[in-house]
Amino acid sequence: MSGESLVDLIAELPSGAVVCDLDVVGGYRSDMASLVPAGQPIAVVRPTTTEEVSRTLAWASRTGTVVIPRGAGTGLSGGANARDGCIVLSLERMSAIRRVDPRNHTVVVEAGVVNAEVTRAVGEFGLFYPPDPGSFEVSTIGGNLATNAGGMRCVKYGVTRQSVLGLEVVLADGRVLCAGGQTMKNVAGLDLTQLMIGSEGALGVITSATLRVRPQPAATATFVASFDTLAQGSEALEGIFASQVTPSVLEILDRHTINAVEDHQRMDLDRDAALLVIGQTDGPEAGAEIERLVGACEVAGASVAVSTTDPAEAHLFMQARRLAGWVVMEAGPTVIEDVAVPRTRVGELLAHVDTISREVGIPIATVGHAGDGNLHPMLRLPDHSGESRRLGLDAADRICAAAISLDGTITGEHGIGELKREHLHHQLDTVSLDVQSAIKAALDPSGILNPGRGF
Amino acid sequence: MSGESLVDLIAELPSGAVVCDLDVVGGYRSDMASLVPAGQPIAVVRPTTTEEVSRTLAWASRTGTVVIPRGAGTGLSGGANARDGCIVLSLERMSAIRRVDPRNHTVVVEAGVVNAEVTRAVGEFGLFYPPDPGSFEVSTIGGNLATNAGGMRCVKYGVTRQSVLGLEVVLADGRVLCAGGQTMKNVAGLDLTQLMIGSEGALGVITSATLRVRPQPAATATFVASFDTLAQGSEALEGIFASQVTPSVLEILDRHTINAVEDHQRMDLDRDAALLVIGQTDGPEAGAEIERLVGACEVAGASVAVSTTDPAEAHLFMQARRLAGWVVMEAGPTVIEDVAVPRTRVGELLAHVDTISREVGIPIATVGHAGDGNLHPMLRLPDHSGESRRLGLDAADRICAAAISLDGTITGEHGIGELKREHLHHQLDTVSLDVQSAIKAALDPSGILNPGRGF
Repeated sequence: MSGESLVDLIAELPSGAVVCDLDVVGGYRSDMASLVPAGQPIAVVRPTTTEEVSRTLAWASRTGTVVIPRGAGTGLSGGANARDGCIVLSLERMSAIRRVDPRNHTVVVEAGVVNAEVTRAVGEFGLFYPPDPGSFEVSTIGGNLATNAGGMRCVKYGVTRQSVLGLEVVLADGRVLCAGGQTMKNVAGLDLTQLMIGSEGALGVITSATLRVRPQPAATATFVASFDTLAQGSEALEGIFASQVTPSVLEILDRHTINAVEDHQRMDLDRDAALLVIGQTDGPEAGAEIERLVGACEVAGASVAVSTTDPAEAHLFMQARRLAGWVVMEAGPTVIEDVAVPRTRVGELLAHVDTISREVGIPIATVGHAGDGNLHPMLRLPDHSGESRRLGLDAADRICAAAISLDGTITGEHGIGELKREHLHHQLDTVSLDVQSAIKAALDPSGILNPGRGF
Repeated sequence: MSGESLVDLIAELPSGAVVCDLDVVGGYRSDMASLVPAGQPIAVVRPTTTEEVSRTLAWASRTGTVVIPRGAGTGLSGGANARDGCIVLSLERMSAIRRVDPRNHTVVVEAGVVNAEVTRAVGEFGLFYPPDPGSFEVSTIGGNLATNAGGMRCVKYGVTRQSVLGLEVVLADGRVLCAGGQTMKNVAGLDLTQLMIGSEGALGVITSATLRVRPQPAATATFVASFDTLAQGSEALEGIFASQVTPSVLEILDRHTINAVEDHQRMDLDRDAALLVIGQTDGPEAGAEIERLVGACEVAGASVAVSTTDPAEAHLFMQARRLAGWVVMEAGPTVIEDVAVPRTRVGELLAHVDTISREVGIPIATVGHAGDGNLHPMLRLPDHSGESRRLGLDAADRICAAAISLDGTITGEHGIGELKREHLHHQLDTVSLDVQSAIKAALDPSGILNPGRGF
């Protein structure tokens, strides 16, 4: 290890790139997983170029300083939470859209570009960027890539990794890796692009990405259906899965969530419903397709099932779903869980969550991407006390165990971060964990990159 | 290294699993890239279970024996070509469909299952498996995964990696890795599934895969258009890309290929056309969409542009494309190239290929997946002489260089194998190659798995 210190890094970077002011640094200590531990960084580094990221990591390697990469800090697993003595490497100032190629449906963006900006940049060409995590108006592409973020449109358009052609990544020692390229197909060498996506900053720092965008659908249609019982709701989902229509959105809200939303803003939702199902179709036959989904809901015994092709009305329908997470988090200390199961087992998972809620004694409001089998049980803790936190972690443990018992996963789109570290070995066996450690050691031999995160 | 020999492997496996008969072994020496070198294996091992694959690799690790994994041997890059003293590990007898889950749109198959069998297994449920390499009636899923195989439907449905949820992989030392799972979304740990796909057997031997299948489209429509000049053809492709319709197939044949097909079987193709474009749309509005594509062809000055929704007629249209590769390969020694560029640069690439053909003095017939910018220039060598081979490799070198100069890749879907080893360092820089070597060393420290292949 060199005799260098933070002073040397400050000297290597432009003025203002390294921030040591405690008040500022404090704002970078954790992401939105506020209930999991976060340490105290020695500085926040805010580079504006790949070269500056490279110098920062080379310095960190030489000095053995832990680096916590960070986007907008909207993560829900603590993957960007600081460790004592680390530097937080914020990509927020690398926010250039380097190139828009509407003829090839690609766009090259820096890691700090906000997700929604990608669609705004290509909208005038009739294109859009499909991945839409709930945080899409604030979260950045770098963070989206680090967690392989999902969203509502995955059910038709795939998760983040399905929209990435290439990456620029700074390795632990400061070298710059160009992975992938600009073509739709490419099998030249190991797919380092795919390996980096979802690695939560543990293998390298993504500075830029070549993203694939797609033509905006000719039309969009939306439906909402209420069910008095979970069994009816599950039957409706089954009917939709069997309908040969691929919805572009298929979301659910349980009774607890419906009431939380209605408490926040009157939308005339049925407070007694066991399940609200909200879905969309898109494409030239969106209107006809939505009627088939409504039909499946009616067959299953929906108390209400309505559809619309009017954008303003559709916005209202979707608003209930979009508000859910924010409403619950605003109301008090919350752990937003993220588990996924084969989609026909969503009903079983909901039943497990209900049991866990009663047994542990914590209210749980569940929303989810039913079309992908990906649910977010939101644990509503009474307060910030240690006892509440313990109950929350107990409930989270049980929810993860339930997901695994249903052939599922402990995280569908939020990542392992700090929150799920203890759960990972329940899902992955030692062979898998050994392979992951071997790859980590090969790419980050000093272990400075977001240590202990991602796997 | 242990003092064991092949006799010990024979004793460890069921009778008949290890074949040493020279005549039989000879049939496993190379894939369909007949012009690149192949060594002499000491045996072919044909396991029927994952456990047998595991024992074979453990033995190979102990004895330092090189292992060349092999599917149906339809590869075009020599990725399955033997090395002297190796064992060829053929997965052909691992051909069970372990599970069909029509409600979740998933199927679990062993590596030796033929691609077309997957669709046949789920067809009765109204589902299909989209990846369709030209060899889909004979090639196996294991080989498809090892090369991340493409095909005609990628333009809409993605390449092989977009249809895989999980893998069972035997590592170099015989340990069995379970990667991924059964859910549509899963970010628990590094994505070893995606890392293994396209790794050409250099990181592990894939024994089983959980594949995602999709609902069969409600309707399919097909068009064919002829163009007198390359410029007109390119303009038509541009028009199609700009049309907001996503075709499910978009293929081209150049004049040389048109004539090779017509020589083989009279189809009344226009022998004077510079380019034939064949495309499909699918979904509820396939008929209306195909008319928009035909319109784009007419605007660009097509001499003929016709469409059909009749399956029998569509089959005839597609037949010209499907025959192209086989017809050329049957006629004499052929190197089938595989390069890809951003799709708007296909016209430039075709012009390069034309120049290269004239300069090197080898006829080149080009077909390709225009919708993905992935072309297959087929180099027609006069004979098997060393001089012909030298000319072929010279032309291949220049085609790869042209692709790279157009922001492209030296392989879109066939892989690096033996054929492209020398080209890879022209596309990837030393950082990328170093990272790939580090990962290889981490997973296969003795270097017994398909050494020198894949990257």
